[in-house]
Amino acid sequence: MERIPVLQVGMGGVGRTLVEQVLTFNERFGGRYGFRFAYVGLADRQGAIVADERIPPAVLLEALAAKRAGSSLADVPAGGPLLDWRNLLTPVPCIIVDVTAQDDAELGLAEAVVQGHRVVLANKKPLCGSMETFRALTERGNTRYEATVGAGLPVISTLRSLLDTGDPVTRISGCFSGTLGFLMTQLEDGQPFSAAVLEAKQRGWTEPDPRDDLSGMDVARKALILARTSGFSAEMEDVAVEPLFPDQLGALSTEEFLAELPTLDHEYRDRFDTIAGQGTTLRYAAQVALDRLSVALTEVPRDSPIGSLRGPDNLVVFQTQRYAERPLSVRGPGAGVEVTAAGVLSDMIALGREWR
Amino acid sequence: MERIPVLQVGMGGVGRTLVEQVLTFNERFGGRYGFRFAYVGLADRQGAIVADERIPPAVLLEALAAKRAGSSLADVPAGGPLLDWRNLLTPVPCIIVDVTAQDDAELGLAEAVVQGHRVVLANKKPLCGSMETFRALTERGNTRYEATVGAGLPVISTLRSLLDTGDPVTRISGCFSGTLGFLMTQLEDGQPFSAAVLEAKQRGWTEPDPRDDLSGMDVARKALILARTSGFSAEMEDVAVEPLFPDQLGALSTEEFLAELPTLDHEYRDRFDTIAGQGTTLRYAAQVALDRLSVALTEVPRDSPIGSLRGPDNLVVFQTQRYAERPLSVRGPGAGVEVTAAGVLSDMIALGREWR
Repeated sequence: MERIPVLQVGMGGVGRTLVEQVLTFNERFGGRYGFRFAYVGLADRQGAIVADERIPPAVLLEALAAKRAGSSLADVPAGGPLLDWRNLLTPVPCIIVDVTAQDDAELGLAEAVVQGHRVVLANKKPLCGSMETFRALTERGNTRYEATVGAGLPVISTLRSLLDTGDPVTRISGCFSGTLGFLMTQLEDGQPFSAAVLEAKQRGWTEPDPRDDLSGMDVARKALILARTSGFSAEMEDVAVEPLFPDQLGALSTEEFLAELPTLDHEYRDRFDTIAGQGTTLRYAAQVALDRLSVALTEVPRDSPIGSLRGPDNLVVFQTQRYAERPLSVRGPGAGVEVTAAGVLSDMIALGREWR
Repeated sequence: MERIPVLQVGMGGVGRTLVEQVLTFNERFGGRYGFRFAYVGLADRQGAIVADERIPPAVLLEALAAKRAGSSLADVPAGGPLLDWRNLLTPVPCIIVDVTAQDDAELGLAEAVVQGHRVVLANKKPLCGSMETFRALTERGNTRYEATVGAGLPVISTLRSLLDTGDPVTRISGCFSGTLGFLMTQLEDGQPFSAAVLEAKQRGWTEPDPRDDLSGMDVARKALILARTSGFSAEMEDVAVEPLFPDQLGALSTEEFLAELPTLDHEYRDRFDTIAGQGTTLRYAAQVALDRLSVALTEVPRDSPIGSLRGPDNLVVFQTQRYAERPLSVRGPGAGVEVTAAGVLSDMIALGREWR
């Protein structure tokens, strides 16, 4: 039974769930595929646990309990302080899993790929640096990132398979944000904008500062990742992004912003009222094509695939040379710790099966 | 650049398109993944071309031309007669690709897997023998069969990924036949049953004998494959199948059957007329669950995901522990030589990336 070394950076909700799913995979499926994952490093923002061979499952479970209780890995018996995840890299190739939202990891990751490590990302940011870094990270197929778009939905793997079998993409469209999907359904059902945002926040579906969702930047990153994977050369500034709040609310503190939310209720009520009775609705939709990269509030027929979305479901529609008249589409919940961790694990399994 | 030996059995429409797609993959993506496919054997019903190292691309192109002109591989300069594809097996492990509709291949394929060969199937029949043979063929993950359900749509890979990440399936439902999907749309639009069947036949969307589609057996095989892959132990006779023609038409010749088709027009007109104005329609739908395996003409709301299908689109809806309230679904055309060959090629690429 081969042991595949894993270094996981990030111990938030997705990271903790991933550790549990990896332990279950090792028990149930190690036999099927002839390998198990062995954690050699586990890091959060301040601390890390490391091991030469593998961190024993009992220690992983202790770390999970400590994290749930609010401690850092720096403070658990097996752990210690950490300055930089790159200090944890092993001399032998490992799978580096980034389940953080950290900035500026891309250069270190690209370097690690050159050294023979494999990379699995739930973190979108390393794929949204320069096009050059994107290429360095991904061109050998040793970096996988299913969970960056649609969480556990088969989006990136489907796209990769279309491209590899010689079917060029002409357009990818759809709704890539469960949070904004929920918001649109609530607005459609008559809830004021401010109340809908607060409800999404209370359900834990927004970032701590909801502007990180309302800015459209999260959807824009997903659009950029799909564009680049499709072979379109594009930078972040090429994505036309419509934010869901006006500029002047951008400079406020989170608390001030939340207090100002009701000032936007009227505008969104108006936008939905204007189209009432016309058989259309509004969705926060993305368009990814060679000549157009945009994410914006878009009027769509209510009975169209996008218009019939409800709640946090994502929809990704692929139009290609072969799927031209009749597109290929994938639909389902595109957020949540369980399904996001599953997207990461399925990438790890694919890399494990390719291990040599 | 590693060369991965491939033995392809079947040179019909899908088989010929696959050869072309493999040649394109070798040119475009060999560099990305560090390997190319090398045909060591190519077989049709009567003949074969074999090579120790690889069949040169020029010979492959000649074989394609000869097949298109109606010849057998037995008659091309590089070819010879063939009794049994198992005679073509190489001493070193290869990828065996079955793009035929042959019966009774499963035991030979299972044996080949034990010997270290990998298998890729577009042929559903080898997966529909006994449950024991299914397990022998698939348990190590060395047999892949994306194209058996939904052609190029990511159905089997999605299911495998759900299971591997610890998400048990509770139910899979949907429409798995492009041919019957087309038929239902035509009936819904008022075309007589006999005319719709003949139109599907003329478009090349039915088997030579349309009863092979109308019997529901093709959909039943897909349902059985999904059930078995989900971990449900089931045999072909466990699938409740509603055929679209009465028993007494089963014994006729194909020509006699086609001549009798108009006798069924009235019944189908009645069935659609009965539900007219009720907001429902009829679809040939499949249900796959632990306690129920069925394929049948089913009344569904017209605005439901299944009811809104048009033409040859397939829909596969996965309900699992994680995707319980909101299912994960895949939709798109589930037939056609280009997309079916692409489903086979994507399996070959996955196996190639795992090659060792």
